[in-house]
Amino acid sequence: MYKNTLYKNTTSVRIRYNETDQMGVVYYGNYASFLEVGRTEWLRSLGTTYKLLEESGVMLPVISLTCNFKKSAYYDELITIHTILKKTPTVKIEFDYEILNEKNELLCSANTTLAFVNAATMKPTRCPEYILNKLTKNTTTQDK
Amino acid sequence: MYKNTLYKNTTSVRIRYNETDQMGVVYYGNYASFLEVGRTEWLRSLGTTYKLLEESGVMLPVISLTCNFKKSAYYDELITIHTILKKTPTVKIEFDYEILNEKNELLCSANTTLAFVNAATMKPTRCPEYILNKLTKNTTTQDK
Amino acid sequence: MYKNTLYKNTTSVRIRYNETDQMGVVYYGNYASFLEVGRTEWLRSLGTTYKLLEESGVMLPVISLTCNFKKSAYYDELITIHTILKKTPTVKIEFDYEILNEKNELLCSANTTLAFVNAATMKPTRCPEYILNKLTKNTTTQDK
Amino acid sequence: MYKNTLYKNTTSVRIRYNETDQMGVVYYGNYASFLEVGRTEWLRSLGTTYKLLEESGVMLPVISLTCNFKKSAYYDELITIHTILKKTPTVKIEFDYEILNEKNELLCSANTTLAFVNAATMKPTRCPEYILNKLTKNTTTQDK
Repeated sequence: MYKNTLYKNTTSVRIRYNETDQMGVVYYGNYASFLEVGRTEWLRSLGTTYKLLEESGVMLPVISLTCNFKKSAYYDELITIHTILKKTPTVKIEFDYEILNEKNELLCSANTTLAFVNAATMKPTRCPEYILNKLTKNTTTQDK
Repeated sequence: MYKNTLYKNTTSVRIRYNETDQMGVVYYGNYASFLEVGRTEWLRSLGTTYKLLEESGVMLPVISLTCNFKKSAYYDELITIHTILKKTPTVKIEFDYEILNEKNELLCSANTTLAFVNAATMKPTRCPEYILNKLTKNTTTQDK
Repeated sequence: MYKNTLYKNTTSVRIRYNETDQMGVVYYGNYASFLEVGRTEWLRSLGTTYKLLEESGVMLPVISLTCNFKKSAYYDELITIHTILKKTPTVKIEFDYEILNEKNELLCSANTTLAFVNAATMKPTRCPEYILNKLTKNTTTQDK
Repeated sequence: MYKNTLYKNTTSVRIRYNETDQMGVVYYGNYASFLEVGRTEWLRSLGTTYKLLEESGVMLPVISLTCNFKKSAYYDELITIHTILKKTPTVKIEFDYEILNEKNELLCSANTTLAFVNAATMKPTRCPEYILNKLTKNTTTQDK
């Protein structure tokens, strides 16, 4: 999965009580917010934030989501989210994810595609240059 | 609880799987969204909507919340939400709620106070006249 | 999408305030709970419930999820969820979904695969006979 | 608020995108999960966990909740949750909370009462001795 990685980040989240359901495990829909945390921290580690991106008039709605659930996550576990970019963003940006538990077992592999949208016109727009620049710079750093 | 009621409305909600937690019951924090459904339908039954209120430039954030939890709610139950207004709204509007299960058992009694806020200035504003008018008209209708 | 349908059901959900995010639209992760409502009502329309299934010792965790988001859903909209079964369930059951807004515009097409699991042993198990029987009976009814 | 404190803990949470609503601020119902994080970390800092408490057959449902909302919380803010115990737990345990933003402004003050329940009998039970002991020990430590 990590082949052809341009830039990756790893972060972690502790499972909250409200994220479980009566099956005693994390509700499948809550993984969407973990993926969001993953790409939020991916962008922060690159040296900018999604908050700044939005404030600059660019929104980034999710246009597709795929999740494969392998094992259950449990209350109070500290899960690890790997967020991986493999392709240079264009008008879209695609992330692969792997979520692991404390025993390093794969809980979920996922993929999302998001679209850069100009908030004023609601039209598609290209990935901002400053993100592409940070990406070029950091990709080199991670390669070392 | 229904004494001195100016206007009340009753609506129902079916408990969703994701609203349960690993205790096998509805997570306490999810009652906030049931209260929101209650006051949304209260306003709709009065002949307007919260959506229209927001579009007219008035927001209605919650400034206080109290919930007393008496019994648990379970997955797939159809719960009933009674939303009651007792005092004429000013710059604030206060609702009392009772949430009951299918056996008519009281699950939760609650109270919220919300503030009318001008979205442009973010300053407090008075309850719009058209809501007060609808309230006067409908109060009379409910009294009959 | 409706080709080769064995059994389908249609239900609707009104968007709640807490399901929106600061982009002003429904947060993508909340669609998972709409799909859950879809298949819950699909099973109810067949003459049984997911609650009964769980009480009989069979759980049905989601093992894969795919969503394609076409248009945004907004607060207070009444969305329609079509839930479609195309293949006879085995140890797995696969649903296709289409979610539409009040203008009949497609908001999201989705697919989930769920696994029948024996709650006592946590091992895969086959779809219960009574569900297969109801399916056979109702499929015929829908064909007429 | 910190007068008569027996034991307090401070933890922090970064606001997630899905916790905002279309008003552009954190949805009021989501504070319930922040309070849960607060008391989870309060118990962990005492040297045990809520997970272990549940595994020992004791559940701790919330029986009352009060929140006063002073200011809004925003996406990506790192909020601080102070969780304060003032009274020795009996069959109930009561927490006070203060949630602050990065500018140290008070966002929300809250109070919850939870009941110790024997999971086998579903009857009220007293706060386990080992928690009372940890409390006595740690109270002294915090006083120094």
